[in-house]
Amino acid sequence: MAHGSGGRISHELIEKVFKTRFSNALLNQGDDAAECKIQNSKFKIAFTTDSYVVKPLFFPGGDIGRLAVCGTVNDLAMKGAKALYLSAGFIIEEGFSLETLEKVADSMAAAAKEAGVFIVTGDTKVVDKGACDGLFINTSGVGVIPEGVNVSGSLAVPGDAVILSGTVGDHGAAVINARNNFGLSGSLFSDAAPLNGLAGAMLKAGMIHVLRDPTRGGLATTLNEIALQSKVTINIEEEKIPVKQEVKGACEMLGLDPLYVANEGKLIAIVPQEDSEKILSVMRQYPLGKAAAIIGKVEAGQPRVLLTTFLGSKRPLMMLEGEALPRIC
Amino acid sequence: MAHGSGGRISHELIEKVFKTRFSNALLNQGDDAAECKIQNSKFKIAFTTDSYVVKPLFFPGGDIGRLAVCGTVNDLAMKGAKALYLSAGFIIEEGFSLETLEKVADSMAAAAKEAGVFIVTGDTKVVDKGACDGLFINTSGVGVIPEGVNVSGSLAVPGDAVILSGTVGDHGAAVINARNNFGLSGSLFSDAAPLNGLAGAMLKAGMIHVLRDPTRGGLATTLNEIALQSKVTINIEEEKIPVKQEVKGACEMLGLDPLYVANEGKLIAIVPQEDSEKILSVMRQYPLGKAAAIIGKVEAGQPRVLLTTFLGSKRPLMMLEGEALPRIC
Repeated sequence: MAHGSGGRISHELIEKVFKTRFSNALLNQGDDAAECKIQNSKFKIAFTTDSYVVKPLFFPGGDIGRLAVCGTVNDLAMKGAKALYLSAGFIIEEGFSLETLEKVADSMAAAAKEAGVFIVTGDTKVVDKGACDGLFINTSGVGVIPEGVNVSGSLAVPGDAVILSGTVGDHGAAVINARNNFGLSGSLFSDAAPLNGLAGAMLKAGMIHVLRDPTRGGLATTLNEIALQSKVTINIEEEKIPVKQEVKGACEMLGLDPLYVANEGKLIAIVPQEDSEKILSVMRQYPLGKAAAIIGKVEAGQPRVLLTTFLGSKRPLMMLEGEALPRIC
Repeated sequence: MAHGSGGRISHELIEKVFKTRFSNALLNQGDDAAECKIQNSKFKIAFTTDSYVVKPLFFPGGDIGRLAVCGTVNDLAMKGAKALYLSAGFIIEEGFSLETLEKVADSMAAAAKEAGVFIVTGDTKVVDKGACDGLFINTSGVGVIPEGVNVSGSLAVPGDAVILSGTVGDHGAAVINARNNFGLSGSLFSDAAPLNGLAGAMLKAGMIHVLRDPTRGGLATTLNEIALQSKVTINIEEEKIPVKQEVKGACEMLGLDPLYVANEGKLIAIVPQEDSEKILSVMRQYPLGKAAAIIGKVEAGQPRVLLTTFLGSKRPLMMLEGEALPRIC
């Protein structure tokens, strides 16, 4: 299971099995969406894919359909792209309720409208009973990267500020609570949302080096990915990271660290210090950026993430090791 | 099961559940790849997706990896596009053999090289034991449609010639034989192959109205789709349709009609009569078009497909109704 967790073991699988075999300059960029040229056009396109296997299919704040649209729109937005077109591939278990499928399709249509994208191509496969767990959805996405925009996990430089758009752990806590019927307070909601509007406004407000959404593996794992890609040390301060009280409580009960729990409507931006306040003030004008905060900074040093705790001590924040939360998206 | 067969019931599901909800001008084109504009560029891109759930994963002539690359490359090629980039999304069952995964990845890399495309972005999800049947792969693809190229299932006009690139039924017969250990003659091989080279040469040789690869539902179902999209009658002649002797034999034993059995390396081209011989002679220079033949013509009339049998009688060839061959791709 750990191979699909988004953590270190999952990184190793991807490196060992896929990257060696499929290796090419575009794949090797290592961002969530590939940046591709179309012939000798002036602009570049962003192209990304994700499969969604979340369990349960419906949870407070979202469902597999909303997730499938938002997740892929967000991967495009995190390359600085204007998201344009989505594909939708459905793998459906024989006997799956048509009514449920319609609810999921409704949710996808609503999320696509919210994000301003079009689902332009699709595919449906039905497999025999027991050959899949109800419903899996793949969405792929195409967007256009405006001229002059250049964001990548590899572009963080010492001195940059690290901005987080809001509270962490909401999505993972809501799904785990729904899956296990823990019946924790009714106030756990997934944050699944399309970030393209927010990201677009930020790109207009100032220079941005890195955009990344901390999904599987959470904030800690995503920051480690950036530290590795950019070969820098990232320092963050625990007291500056917003976590909802109810998420904190749920994580304590479940033995989870909110810094490792998946988000589906949050972004990390790494920006030059001098642009950080300007970008932050634009973010706070958007509902999805209301709680945005500068949580740390980039320093020269070996690729790692250091957390200054509430007590003032510094500890390394490792990449998620194995599988904390399977089938979270 | 019939909902995923590629036949009439599957069409109804797509119409009822998805097309009504996701409706937009690009999706509604109804071809295997959507034709999209990127801003005000001179060219258009083609964008397509397919999930692969074939059982067994390996069969004579191919495997799920080769299929996943070729199928998506072919959907791009059937819009007249030059295939450029693929995504690869893996859903893997916990405990799935790493060695087998590596074999599949090898096969994908080889097929991508053969087709001249790059796998530029990917995703891996591992699900718990029993939640999926070993391995499912989604590939999506992006290509560029050269200026002046305009092919679509909706562009067949009365008088056009119907060209088929080779024998029908090879893929389906090989997979069914492998799945059920029927042990039929060792000469059943899938035709899975990338058609983009052949299609590209054909587009240079003459005017082409329709390109379509007869996959799920076979030649008969694909011709029905074209007849519906173009609102024409398509007449084909049984004696002109090449079928391998061993495929004919296998289909007889299994009670299948080769005209409804899936192909993964064949194309239908509908072209103006006056260009047909020129295009045919170019096709025959390619290994994948060696057995190409004109199998019929387009006439004015209600949307349907008529088959002139060996005995000279005419009978309507309906769209595949339910599920003949589940999990064939």
